[in-house]
Amino acid sequence: MAAFNDRFLRACRREPVDVTPVWFMRQAGRYLPEYRALRERYGFLELCRQPELAAEITRMPLRRFEVDAAILFSDLSLPLLGMGIRLILEEGTGPVIESPIRQAADLVRLRPLEPEADLPFVLETIRGLRAELQVPLIGFIGGPFTLACYLVEGRASRDFTRVRAWMFREPESWHALMDLLTDSLSRYARAQAAAGVHALQIFESWIGVLNPLDYRAFVHPYLQRLIESLRPAGIPVILFGTGTAALLEDLAEAGGTVIGLDWRVPLDVAWARLGDQVAVQGNLDPAVLLAPFEVVVEHAARILRQAGSRPGHIFNTGHGLLPETPPDTVARLVDWVHAWPVACSGAPL
Amino acid sequence: MAAFNDRFLRACRREPVDVTPVWFMRQAGRYLPEYRALRERYGFLELCRQPELAAEITRMPLRRFEVDAAILFSDLSLPLLGMGIRLILEEGTGPVIESPIRQAADLVRLRPLEPEADLPFVLETIRGLRAELQVPLIGFIGGPFTLACYLVEGRASRDFTRVRAWMFREPESWHALMDLLTDSLSRYARAQAAAGVHALQIFESWIGVLNPLDYRAFVHPYLQRLIESLRPAGIPVILFGTGTAALLEDLAEAGGTVIGLDWRVPLDVAWARLGDQVAVQGNLDPAVLLAPFEVVVEHAARILRQAGSRPGHIFNTGHGLLPETPPDTVARLVDWVHAWPVACSGAPL
Repeated sequence: MAAFNDRFLRACRREPVDVTPVWFMRQAGRYLPEYRALRERYGFLELCRQPELAAEITRMPLRRFEVDAAILFSDLSLPLLGMGIRLILEEGTGPVIESPIRQAADLVRLRPLEPEADLPFVLETIRGLRAELQVPLIGFIGGPFTLACYLVEGRASRDFTRVRAWMFREPESWHALMDLLTDSLSRYARAQAAAGVHALQIFESWIGVLNPLDYRAFVHPYLQRLIESLRPAGIPVILFGTGTAALLEDLAEAGGTVIGLDWRVPLDVAWARLGDQVAVQGNLDPAVLLAPFEVVVEHAARILRQAGSRPGHIFNTGHGLLPETPPDTVARLVDWVHAWPVACSGAPL
Repeated sequence: MAAFNDRFLRACRREPVDVTPVWFMRQAGRYLPEYRALRERYGFLELCRQPELAAEITRMPLRRFEVDAAILFSDLSLPLLGMGIRLILEEGTGPVIESPIRQAADLVRLRPLEPEADLPFVLETIRGLRAELQVPLIGFIGGPFTLACYLVEGRASRDFTRVRAWMFREPESWHALMDLLTDSLSRYARAQAAAGVHALQIFESWIGVLNPLDYRAFVHPYLQRLIESLRPAGIPVILFGTGTAALLEDLAEAGGTVIGLDWRVPLDVAWARLGDQVAVQGNLDPAVLLAPFEVVVEHAARILRQAGSRPGHIFNTGHGLLPETPPDTVARLVDWVHAWPVACSGAPL
């Protein structure tokens, strides 16, 4: 039996590693033919709800690639289902809420999430995987702002204008909404930790639509409280967002162990701004993986050079893998990253 | 007859002004009942194509508000029509291209734009307005990257993944596409200048989906060439984009007179990074205008304080006015900005 690979966890803690750890957001997903085959037989929600299927999908990339972590197959909108919100889960578009939350009076429709009662299948999937995997298992939740975006807008949008308008127009009910979401998400994240995830990623995916001063006033306290509530669990917390170039200093203060960067920021510039108390994860443009491998290598080398010898870099894409991604490119990239000379050894290059 | 108000043009040139000039992107649009009334009788494209109607819509906000500039009523996709691309113009969603450009072979479908022959009505509208307005008239074009986004993706998208994939996968045909667009847009912008616009705004709206190094390689040379080609016209060029927090230093180098900021960046931080050779325009979150006026004032004051006494600030929203914006809020905001004490006088506060 192979030894447990803790390279990813060591990098989260900014400890020296032999080679740079690598995994990919959406590494278990539509670009894999074996996933699509399963998807033909089951609805997306069904795959999330059946522990043996969710575990099987979580394992799929591990059979093909030497990635250094597994990420739970699930969806960030499941807690909303558990909170009493009806939604349609369409792969590609993300969740679509049948009746969005549009005013303070709608908040009564949200009941607090009880993870063990509402989402037992997620916890069961985690317990099963935990017992067998030879790499760390990453659990995840959507961030409170990102879930509020889906709840209020009803579906993904470019700017989430309705959400921003609510914040400015009715700050009191906005804070009530964030308070509700933060409590439920904290319980859900702690339940995942108790079930055995080695790390937890917060997908605060849409946070980049906010000006930093508005982020501070309307979101930051909730992210801080959420992350603080996970501290007793003792696992690394990865805080990921897109379009965060103006928010990096603030996100670093939210308390995460690792900041996940999207592809829009140069990793070196971003890490310098984040300071020396966090590790970073990222940040290859997932569209690069549709190009010939020599282009992939050029972009990956750029990122590894930007990371340099500073300990605490986890290689990843800057957003989820695209459905058109060739699995062979992913396989070659993983090996190529692992062959990069001691980028994160902690010794100067 | 009132004297010509050149406050906006003075600010573009970073000269002292009596009060901060103000205008709004989409100030002539759906939030105005008189616009909606006209729109009930005419299609959107028809409004763009009939000079007397386009001029009338351009004038609408000037009758209601003391704004310091007029912006031509038009649409950034018109050059694509002129280049032989069939599209549907839906207000709200932006242009939708019937058959997107998806591969190098599709480039033959693009013919060079001849503004005088293809878009004579735009130039006629400009000439008519130029003769009568008491404030500067701003013309505009979409930037080459933004038009490429519509051409390739077919419609607005959050990340323009297909566009990024093309750049990485087939750089040669990408450069051919940008070359074509840049030449046509340069001719169109120069024709607008010759017809009489006092300034020209380049809406490079979607540029923020790129990493700075990719922006440099795939877009920057074209923006530079475009702006350089406008220099003989002697009018200020405003370069506007959204999500540009990681690109500011690069955009400042593209050669524009003014950088238009979206609401996501603090204006003071952004202006410091842009350096002392450019003026700035922005950057109130348009969603703030849906809130009570005391909230509007709080956010507007924040921006005027960030601008301080440095000459060269033009007050605007960080993106177009939303259809739900109350015209009365806009009227009060314009007067309120004009009452702000000598923020841009050039003297220290």
